[in-house]
Amino acid sequence: MKTPLTCLAASLSLSTAVFAQDAPDDAAPSPNEIVAEAAPEEWAAIAPDDLLVMTLAPAADGSAREVVIQLMPPPFSQGWVDNIRTLARAGWYDGISVNRVQDNYVVQWGDPNHDNPEADGEAKPLPEGLQTVEERDYTNALSVGEEGSILLWHPQDYFEDNYADWSQFKEGWPVASAVDDDTRTLSQWPVHCYGMVGVGRNHSPDTGSGAQLYTRIGHAPRHLDRNIALVGRVVEGIEHLSSLPRGKGALGFYEDPAKRVPIRSIRVASDFPADQQPAFEYLSTESQIFARYAEARTNRRDPFFIVPAGGADICNIPVPVRRVKK
Amino acid sequence: MKTPLTCLAASLSLSTAVFAQDAPDDAAPSPNEIVAEAAPEEWAAIAPDDLLVMTLAPAADGSAREVVIQLMPPPFSQGWVDNIRTLARAGWYDGISVNRVQDNYVVQWGDPNHDNPEADGEAKPLPEGLQTVEERDYTNALSVGEEGSILLWHPQDYFEDNYADWSQFKEGWPVASAVDDDTRTLSQWPVHCYGMVGVGRNHSPDTGSGAQLYTRIGHAPRHLDRNIALVGRVVEGIEHLSSLPRGKGALGFYEDPAKRVPIRSIRVASDFPADQQPAFEYLSTESQIFARYAEARTNRRDPFFIVPAGGADICNIPVPVRRVKK
Repeated sequence: MKTPLTCLAASLSLSTAVFAQDAPDDAAPSPNEIVAEAAPEEWAAIAPDDLLVMTLAPAADGSAREVVIQLMPPPFSQGWVDNIRTLARAGWYDGISVNRVQDNYVVQWGDPNHDNPEADGEAKPLPEGLQTVEERDYTNALSVGEEGSILLWHPQDYFEDNYADWSQFKEGWPVASAVDDDTRTLSQWPVHCYGMVGVGRNHSPDTGSGAQLYTRIGHAPRHLDRNIALVGRVVEGIEHLSSLPRGKGALGFYEDPAKRVPIRSIRVASDFPADQQPAFEYLSTESQIFARYAEARTNRRDPFFIVPAGGADICNIPVPVRRVKK
Repeated sequence: MKTPLTCLAASLSLSTAVFAQDAPDDAAPSPNEIVAEAAPEEWAAIAPDDLLVMTLAPAADGSAREVVIQLMPPPFSQGWVDNIRTLARAGWYDGISVNRVQDNYVVQWGDPNHDNPEADGEAKPLPEGLQTVEERDYTNALSVGEEGSILLWHPQDYFEDNYADWSQFKEGWPVASAVDDDTRTLSQWPVHCYGMVGVGRNHSPDTGSGAQLYTRIGHAPRHLDRNIALVGRVVEGIEHLSSLPRGKGALGFYEDPAKRVPIRSIRVASDFPADQQPAFEYLSTESQIFARYAEARTNRRDPFFIVPAGGADICNIPVPVRRVKK
């Protein structure tokens, strides 16, 4: 951000008091109990074109390992997401592997012979049709309007944020915002919470093609915001990645190629036959029930709790996502 | 906290500007490179009486699994820490197990037949000599003085904090602070960052004995601050806990007793023969080099980075800890 948190942002953060008025005083439902009360129309369907199914080789005990990723719709990630669909549809991801697992930080997968300090072979050629992403803003941030346009948003959505002027949820995604001191324009960018998926890259001006991806498996490394492009999040099966053995090489890369975890395939869900497509919904972050859920995460009053926190950071309010029958 | 972040706290947080003056403009060392520059006297030894060595049963491939925990010295945790040493010295922990692994949340160990929804036997009797902890403040918070006493601290230590008026490091530990609106007294408490170790408990007024412990393996669940007592942190081997398979029962408990991970022993390091005692040091959080490290974590300028964040939350600044030869 351009400036430390200002008193303007601090006053926006009175949202916790706004939330509190909505919660009944005589009951103390947990955040999950509140989510369970949501009406069907408060859940938003995720388009099958925005779902990736990543199938790892089975675990040592023979059990299946499937990870489902929700791709981020426009505007934040359009170029990379197009590339990811192209790579998936070319079958390019089939046979790559998880090459890096660093505790409290990252799981990274891609061609083990590309951008891997432990590479031991020739890099796999990329398919035709990928967009060059040098032209894009690798900071993953967008200028979205003049300063005054923030007034168009719901005031109860704001969170104090040490890495921005404030943060909020926007169409299901955690997003940070800052007003530039000089131009007074507002920019926004998606943020590195647990389970978010991004595009590996080398040093600037490389921005990454989408052939190498990562997810976050520890405390939110928010210093990566606007430095690596976020393009989605894991919505099911993250335990198949977060519980992998940590790599013992530099940065958590596996030194022994035999430790790499083979990826059988990555497919776009819309390419499956209709009756085999997985279906997921997220709790609309613009709904009243989401505001109640976020308030209850911020001020826990269910029986185990003694002292409600009175505040929360956006990465401690995971957006509820559920698998549904088609 | 009693009130939302105030402008007072916001002005304290100008620490990032203070930090920036210390960093050379013509070089961009990474945080780890800065730590490598620390002089021997900027590292503080951890007393062997404050180190626990937890030995798990070997992994499936036969490799050893040892976890080292630093106990938190007074004043925050004295009662529970005494109990933990008593339990370790009685050999009570030997033969218990890791019973719960919940993704992005917690690894918990203890008697599998106590406070476990999947219990299938009789609870193990506790040893003599444990302190009753009903009398203690289970919120783990201490009133440490009048409001004005904050002026005694180093201004560059402050971090904005959504869960408190501010947070800071104190003798190696991440600590949050708040001034009570009514009494104007200052209270402080340790915070739930990744790897912190705390005392399992049942519903209030139970405060936990120390027989059941947990560590955090995901985004900092700061809403637990002042609700469960923190007593230490993992300083080595957390990967042996964080990479365990997630439990499929309620709250991540293992449904199948065979999945529980046996704990061979938990020992206080000072009880080993002197030449076998592990030795660890932490980077003094009161040192100038720590301030430089924290500033570099806050404003990454090493070559990979494009946009320095300009802020950080305290759990994204892990305190460097290293094993040393005696």
